[in-house]
Parts: sequence; C-alpha cells; structure tokens
Amino acid sequence: MYNIGIAARTRKSCFFDATVAAGATAFTVYNHMLMPLWYESPIIDYWYLMNNVSMWDVAVERQVALKGPDAFKLAQLMTPRNISKQKVGQGKYVPIVDENGGMLNDPILLRLADDHFWLSLADSDILLWAKGIAYGRGLDVTITEPDVSPLAIQGPNADAVIVDLLGEWATHLKFFWFKEYDLDGIPLVVAKSGWSKQGGYELYLRDGSKGIELWDRVAQAGAKHGIEPGAPSTIERIESSLLSYGNDMTIDHNPFEIGLGRYCDVDQPADFIGKAALQKVRDNGITQKLVGIFIDHAEPLGNTHWWPLSHNGAPAGNATSVTYSPRLERNIALAIIPIAQTAPGTQLMVDSDVGRLACTVTTIPFL
Amino acid sequence: MYNIGIAARTRKSCFFDATVAAGATAFTVYNHMLMPLWYESPIIDYWYLMNNVSMWDVAVERQVALKGPDAFKLAQLMTPRNISKQKVGQGKYVPIVDENGGMLNDPILLRLADDHFWLSLADSDILLWAKGIAYGRGLDVTITEPDVSPLAIQGPNADAVIVDLLGEWATHLKFFWFKEYDLDGIPLVVAKSGWSKQGGYELYLRDGSKGIELWDRVAQAGAKHGIEPGAPSTIERIESSLLSYGNDMTIDHNPFEIGLGRYCDVDQPADFIGKAALQKVRDNGITQKLVGIFIDHAEPLGNTHWWPLSHNGAPAGNATSVTYSPRLERNIALAIIPIAQTAPGTQLMVDSDVGRLACTVTTIPFL
Repeated sequence: MYNIGIAARTRKSCFFDATVAAGATAFTVYNHMLMPLWYESPIIDYWYLMNNVSMWDVAVERQVALKGPDAFKLAQLMTPRNISKQKVGQGKYVPIVDENGGMLNDPILLRLADDHFWLSLADSDILLWAKGIAYGRGLDVTITEPDVSPLAIQGPNADAVIVDLLGEWATHLKFFWFKEYDLDGIPLVVAKSGWSKQGGYELYLRDGSKGIELWDRVAQAGAKHGIEPGAPSTIERIESSLLSYGNDMTIDHNPFEIGLGRYCDVDQPADFIGKAALQKVRDNGITQKLVGIFIDHAEPLGNTHWWPLSHNGAPAGNATSVTYSPRLERNIALAIIPIAQTAPGTQLMVDSDVGRLACTVTTIPFL
Repeated sequence: MYNIGIAARTRKSCFFDATVAAGATAFTVYNHMLMPLWYESPIIDYWYLMNNVSMWDVAVERQVALKGPDAFKLAQLMTPRNISKQKVGQGKYVPIVDENGGMLNDPILLRLADDHFWLSLADSDILLWAKGIAYGRGLDVTITEPDVSPLAIQGPNADAVIVDLLGEWATHLKFFWFKEYDLDGIPLVVAKSGWSKQGGYELYLRDGSKGIELWDRVAQAGAKHGIEPGAPSTIERIESSLLSYGNDMTIDHNPFEIGLGRYCDVDQPADFIGKAALQKVRDNGITQKLVGIFIDHAEPLGNTHWWPLSHNGAPAGNATSVTYSPRLERNIALAIIPIAQTAPGTQLMVDSDVGRLACTVTTIPFL
C-alpha cells in the first residue's frame, strides 16, 4: 500500500472533512476529486452495506448540466439510448459513445426540466466532450459543472433512514426517478438510485456549503438504523455485476460488448453520435463479450490491473475486476473474453498476481 | 496521510514496476494514471534534482495525437498561440482554452510532421475536447491517445547523462525542440524540455513494452553522475513558478490572468476557439492576476487546498500552491489575487492550515 499525495488539484468533496472525521483511511482520485474508498476495511464496510445501511460520499459523481433550447438535442446526440420519452423527474442510465461507438462514460441522465439535464458522471471529463460537440455544431446550450454533490444512502435499512430524514413520500419514488426537495434550507434532488443492488437513495446536494450539515443530518437520522460511513463497494458491485468505467469498459469497447446493447436504440429516428458504427456492430455481431468467471483459489483475490486470460494456451481476453465474494464464498471476476469462449462452463486460465489459476465462465450478475 | 486504493481504472505507467522497485512511496492520480510523487521525501528528492540529476516517470503526460489533412487546422483552433510558423521537430507551450477563454489545459504541442501533432497533456481529458470539436466541425483528422510514455531526466548533470545514453548530438537540440531516435531498438522522441528549470530532457518512449528496459538504461547511464529516481518537484516548480493545471489555473481563469498572455496572439488571422472572448479580455484588462507571495511563518508550510487571502479584512483571492523554499529559506506561494493588490510589497493575510498569517506580494519567478 502506498501513500496518496494531495494537492489543491485533487479537489475535495464538500463532505471531505466529515469523511476524514468519520475515519476514512483510503482514497482514490475520480473526476479530479478525492473519493473515500473504505473506513474500517473493505470487508467490514461491505457487511454494513449488506446488513444495515451505509452512507457514501459520492460527490465525485460530478454533474454536467446541459441547459437551453438545444439541451435535449445535445443529450440525445450524446447517447444511443432513446430518450425521447424521458420525463421531467426521471433518470436514465445512458451509455455515452464516440463516433466509433467506443464507450466514453456511463452516467445517469436526469431530466430536471424540458430544457435542463444533468449527466451524473463516471470518471472522464464529459464536460469537455459535451462542450466540444456543442461548440463544433453551434448548438444553443449552456454546459457547466454545477455545485452539486451526491451523497448516497444504500442498504436494506435505507428506506427507514430516508423516512426519518425526509418523510414517507420519498419511499414512493419509482426506481431512478427523483424529486427536488428543500430539507430545512438544504437544497436537494432526491433520487431512488445508487451504485449497489441493496436499494437506496442518492441525495444530490445543490449547495456545497451545506455538505457537513447534510452529512450530520443523515448520520443522525441513520443512527438508530445502524448507519455507518462507507463507499461504493468493489465487492458488492462485482457480485451485482454493476460495471465501472475504466475498469470494465474503455473507449476500446462498444456497448454491445459489455452488455449495454439493451440501452442502444440504433434504429431510432433521432441522430446520435456513433449511430452508423453501432448499427454495424448490431448487424455484424460482436467478437468479444463481458462475462463472469469463477477463479479457483483458496485465498481471497483482488486485482490492480487487468489479468490476462487464456484458453488452451491461446490469449482469451482479460479479467477486468476481481474480488472474493463473501456471500458466494469464492473468488469471482468480470472478464471480457472472445465470443467463442463465452459459453457457461468454459474453462480458462488466468495469470493472476499469485500465478496461473484455473477459472470457469459463468453468467452475470453473480447475485 | 492516507492510503491510495488502486484498481485497474487507475492506469499503470510502463515504468510503474521500476518506480516501485526504486522505492516510490507516494503516488497521485493524473490523467487516470498513477504518478510517483516522491521516493525518500519531497525535500531529499529536491536536493538530488538541484545538485545532481533525477529521473522521473511522467508517463501521465499522456499524448493526444492529431493526424490527417485537418490536423494543423484543429491544432490552431485549439490554442490562442499562433502556431503558423511551428516547424516539424519543434515543441511549443500552448494554452488550451474554451469558447469563453477559460483554461482547459496547458500542454506542449509537438509537431512530428506537417500533418501530425502531439499534445503532451496536463491533467484533463483533452482527447474528448479535441474529438468533440473535430466531430462537431466535421474535420478530417484522426485523434487518438497513442502508446507514448515520457521519461524525464532533469538537473545539472542531465547533459552528462544524455551524452552517455544517446551521444553528444542530443545536447545540441534547441530548447523545446526534439528529434526521433532509435536507442538499440527502443523508439524515442528526444526533447530538450521538462517541468523544472534545472535543465534536461524528456524521452518520449513510443513502445510501452520497453518501459523497464529504458528505465534501466537511463539509471545505468546516470549512475556515475549521481542520478536518483524522482518526480516533478512541487518545491522546485513553485520556486521556478511553473504553473500546474488544476492548482494554479482552472476553467475559471483566462491565460492573461495567469501570466500566459504572451502566448496569446488574439489578432492573428487564423480562427481559434475563444478568440472573441480573449480579444475582449485584452481590450478591457484583467481583474485578477497570478503573483508570488512570501508567507511569514517559522515552520515549513504546504497546502492541500486553496488558502483564502484577505486585504484589510476583505477577501483578496487565494494562495494556490504553497511550499517552503529551501533555497530562499522562507515560505513562498503562488496566488491569484485582485489586480488592485498586485503591487509588490502589498501586505495580505492568508488563512492557512495553521491559522491566519501575514504575507507580502512579490514578483515571480521566485528563482
């Protein structure tokens, strides 16, 4: 384990001081901002999420706001998903691809008004992509990174916390829908969403100066429900097979290869970037695909870079995200492999940090 | 000090294993990639740079390659600097600004051929900005991040090392010029450049699989000249007043405010993004400016976020990069302050991590 050096350039979340006070011990940098990774340990934090409820500083999910007459046009241009029926108050998971169909990001798109959208980002400067396209096309839209900082509440007790914090109404939100709400002067967008499959909410704080106040309010409301500070759990998200931009997809992958084909309406009437490229992929099929693998090893595994896979001695893609699953009590991984090897049960070998290990292709999600 | 959590998403330099073996103890994330920050300590590493020579893994200076019939047009569109006379083999420091004149990056632009450029980046995804503009404008140019990893050799003994490594010819390069060179099968672009004012070279390695081989060759050639592993030195670069994107400038600053006005030819015939905005700044003048300040404090200082400044009790900008200068034997900082307070000798107060301290405006560079 190495130290992380911190400069002004590594931006601080408005919850940063609270997360340090709560005992955050490891950080990463995401969208040029520090993000807590764990408090007690990845495994202890995981069980808080699974058994009770945890609160996450995910302010690194920076928003790109599109506002103005051409906001809808730009939003649609940026994703192969058909957003023509997206309502105000509704969020959608949208692949963002370039002209070759390569993945640039996989944000949630929130529609705040007919002419006002937020892209709640994974780790890449989509602000620059959106601004470049708008500039090049001469679109009438203002593109900014507004003062918005999501705080996630995730886990089986999330509903109980949210009722105590905001009231019963929030539990009636439909999945991925949101509502603007003022919590005693703390301006929020409250969404039923989050980067786990344990259920919960994301509170998009619209005033960074209230970060510590919101953190404390959530901690107080959660105390009797066993809330603990946490962070997006690598273990849980691999078990649930939620993808991570940069880990399980890059600009070199198209949405069909990583299981996001169902979000691509390549024949929709509207124009979008990468349309011709993705129509070709749809017509010709894919040559590689994201799958799950079980890795045979008695000790818990985890990766810090892609682990090469092979099939009968020939290269067969990479394991992209590896973890030990406490619920399955075995090592699991997401992997991108040649289409010929994707049948469940196929035997592969992986060059792990502890040597070459046997593994078996399986379906995802694991859980 | 916190731990840094590492996933596949935090990309590894092709020199990474060598830097770990050489004792790198702290890292940051820059352009989605790990960068060593120091080995023994920032101050010990600083003296190696000042007195002898040090070798830096700066593979995080990712390249954006522009290639094709419209490569020159796009390169000029992206910077207010007039590049019409830039020769093949020449590098130039170029501000990149948006349509409002806001700084997006401050790379070196290398011209490899009439229709082939590299932007050697600071920390933002200019790949997406360039691709967005090219897509929007329908330009005929291919934009990629090629397999290129710079290794810097900096310090007073850099010439001696480079002669032993490459031969006498390299020392005859003019400042910021470069030459392609094959070092026994290791493909390089050798430039007389680097992010210090101690002199030296950057070796742009064009084949990541040769990273360790190049690192070892440089270490061997440097051994008798006292070479040590190091990294861009926060201390030296503040003393020399080299700016750092994200620290001393953001999208909210224009080039004139941060002392880069001399690189902006706002009346050039060619079109560039932000031309109208920067002409207005040139005509109306600036309201804030980057300066140096001395901070009165007996103990060495350093900042991890901007420190607010005040003048007679009123807010007066921020100290952006703070360090103790071993050569000046006092605390110094770069600061962006209102134009009314920029006269050398002006007294300000700074809200530092150790309380409110007196400071004095001065000119830069410090050394």
